[in-house]
Amino acid sequence: MASLKRSALAPKTFPKVSTIAGVTLKTARAGIKSPGRDDLLLVTLDRGTTVAGVFTRSATASAPVQWSRKVAASGKARAILINSGNANTFTGGQGVADVSSTAGMASRTAGCRPSDVLIASTGVIGEPLPVNRIQNALSRMQSSRRTASWLDAARAIGTTDTYPKGAMRRTFIGNTEVSLFGIAKGSGMIAPDMATMLAFIFTDAKLPASVLRVLLKEGIRTSFNCITVDSDTSTSDTVLLAATGQAANRSPQSVSAPQLKAFRVALKELLTDLAIQVVRDGEGASKFITVDVSGAASSAEARKAALAIANSPLVKTAISGEDANWGRIIMAVGKSGARLFQHRLAISIGGITITDGGERVPSYDENQVTTHLKGTDISIAVDLGVGRSRSRVWTCDLTHDYIRINADYRT
Amino acid sequence: MASLKRSALAPKTFPKVSTIAGVTLKTARAGIKSPGRDDLLLVTLDRGTTVAGVFTRSATASAPVQWSRKVAASGKARAILINSGNANTFTGGQGVADVSSTAGMASRTAGCRPSDVLIASTGVIGEPLPVNRIQNALSRMQSSRRTASWLDAARAIGTTDTYPKGAMRRTFIGNTEVSLFGIAKGSGMIAPDMATMLAFIFTDAKLPASVLRVLLKEGIRTSFNCITVDSDTSTSDTVLLAATGQAANRSPQSVSAPQLKAFRVALKELLTDLAIQVVRDGEGASKFITVDVSGAASSAEARKAALAIANSPLVKTAISGEDANWGRIIMAVGKSGARLFQHRLAISIGGITITDGGERVPSYDENQVTTHLKGTDISIAVDLGVGRSRSRVWTCDLTHDYIRINADYRT
Repeated sequence: MASLKRSALAPKTFPKVSTIAGVTLKTARAGIKSPGRDDLLLVTLDRGTTVAGVFTRSATASAPVQWSRKVAASGKARAILINSGNANTFTGGQGVADVSSTAGMASRTAGCRPSDVLIASTGVIGEPLPVNRIQNALSRMQSSRRTASWLDAARAIGTTDTYPKGAMRRTFIGNTEVSLFGIAKGSGMIAPDMATMLAFIFTDAKLPASVLRVLLKEGIRTSFNCITVDSDTSTSDTVLLAATGQAANRSPQSVSAPQLKAFRVALKELLTDLAIQVVRDGEGASKFITVDVSGAASSAEARKAALAIANSPLVKTAISGEDANWGRIIMAVGKSGARLFQHRLAISIGGITITDGGERVPSYDENQVTTHLKGTDISIAVDLGVGRSRSRVWTCDLTHDYIRINADYRT
Repeated sequence: MASLKRSALAPKTFPKVSTIAGVTLKTARAGIKSPGRDDLLLVTLDRGTTVAGVFTRSATASAPVQWSRKVAASGKARAILINSGNANTFTGGQGVADVSSTAGMASRTAGCRPSDVLIASTGVIGEPLPVNRIQNALSRMQSSRRTASWLDAARAIGTTDTYPKGAMRRTFIGNTEVSLFGIAKGSGMIAPDMATMLAFIFTDAKLPASVLRVLLKEGIRTSFNCITVDSDTSTSDTVLLAATGQAANRSPQSVSAPQLKAFRVALKELLTDLAIQVVRDGEGASKFITVDVSGAASSAEARKAALAIANSPLVKTAISGEDANWGRIIMAVGKSGARLFQHRLAISIGGITITDGGERVPSYDENQVTTHLKGTDISIAVDLGVGRSRSRVWTCDLTHDYIRINADYRT
């Protein structure tokens, strides 16, 4: 694979290191695909940790996704084993056996039961998982006292990522200060209809699994489910939220508890932060694009129109070419299936109104839009002129580098 | 716009010229967008010609589409005016007035009523139609006796097309020999859910409009509605079928008439021929891809899975890179929403079985697939293992040239 330059849209810094009590990180070089880099992360979680997970809806979901769905459903876990370089997807009965045996190995290293181990794998599809290498790496982890930083962890789970992705928040549940730290990976095969990559969020808050589940689902709806790089949904998408409970002795038992409000906001912010980082590392991305659709008959229709714009190769190439070709936005909303009144359709780019009432505004000055398009953060707003619902979606442009990265991914 | 090399996938020749009795072609250089090339085609149809049309389903359909829908619904027409370089789409009330006035101008040249004139425009969206230039060109046409060939006509209607697209068939209705000639344009903004480009088919057969309508709709279902270049549906898509009736005195009154069988087959073949030519000129295409999905629960599900493969940027870039990355096909069918049994899923490329029963076959030799991928005509077959329905879709790969063409289309 061609080595990749750090995305021009990458954030300047990785969040300051902050430990989450009850979470221990270890990384290793298992040599699953590429030698010379960490590709295995074992997260050990103290007794009493509650978890929730959201997984891909793909009908060809990977063996690890099928395994982890069950573990997450139990509401508790003691370890998460994540490898990059091999997705263990479409590997038949052997793939299922391999997940089970790596969970067994990780449980010995972590000192828990195999059914307490969550597994996540991304990378090439259809190749058998090199279980022996993972076994060797886990043995080395067990005998070493070296723990890894969040930055090490974020790096170990990446594949075509050009920068490590992390986000942190501090907030309160009642009077108790709690921390959240999340890491994510993903840059291609990113589309909504679920998580679209891997993300792991840890908190020392004490919360029952039933509450975590609701909070995670709600947070994903406006974050990871609103991003798209290339409309391709992965077979491995996984988002896990783990709460060690070490910050407090007591926990709110219901999502509607008023003291949860700040935590809820913090979690949503953190998920959105990570989701945006994934898009900003979209394969070959040179522009980060925010698409706002308003005036829709329903929020589902708004989302449909926003995704049609965000997934249109013609819109994405126009933006990569810094070309104010707004006709392609007209085309995209037209094909989306969302109801619209053409004689009311309003489009603006970078806050500059281009069309209103179904035609170009007389004062429209293309140079202003072109100036906006020369920047890296592009905004598109469309009002469908039908109702009051809205939706926001994030994407990136489609460039030569996307082709370069994906035409020679395995070679 | 960058000048474009003839697609490597272009057919060797344009069909031998054959006139269709009752059809007269004239072309002109109106200078709508680019000087120095014909960009206007006026087709005059003799009295008694019946027509049928199928149009884009886009909610932002162009002014000409809205006009022509009405004309086609009447079942008869005396002229078709087609311009390239400007789509007259999203041009508000002015656009509607412009269609009406160009229909008036063309009706004077053709000697008919404005309501007998079909109009089709493709090119840039949102720019006002240069009506004066069209008026001048029509005046020149009227005063000149020069008629155009099918090849001239096919060239005049093109935009980013790298070669003129034409197809002909001869067949019989009962004992009467009839001819069909079709021309088409299109290479980007091509996706199904209707015609996805412009195509005009002419025949000297004598057939009522009610019969034409059924035959056209049926023929499009397995041709133009089964192609995709970039999943973007145009606002201008139009397919028109015109029958001058000059080959016979009497016509079958029902589509179920047995003497129509050969004509039906010939029309389907011709439509498929033109549709494939459009894909083979897909913007930047270096490979022509046939996707067959079988074993689906219904033909709609088969089509959904086939389109998910054909529209996946990751599948398309893998093929452009001649990379046997079949995991991306697994991903694409997985996200498609079509029912499948993963433990029965079978995939082959170029007739070489890769997976069967949910995993890679032991005998799989990647070199054989790589050899197939080095060719220009690629075939992908997937069996979902659920039912007996199937679907075939045609597409092309996604290359650097697609980006190059679309990032600087207007400049």
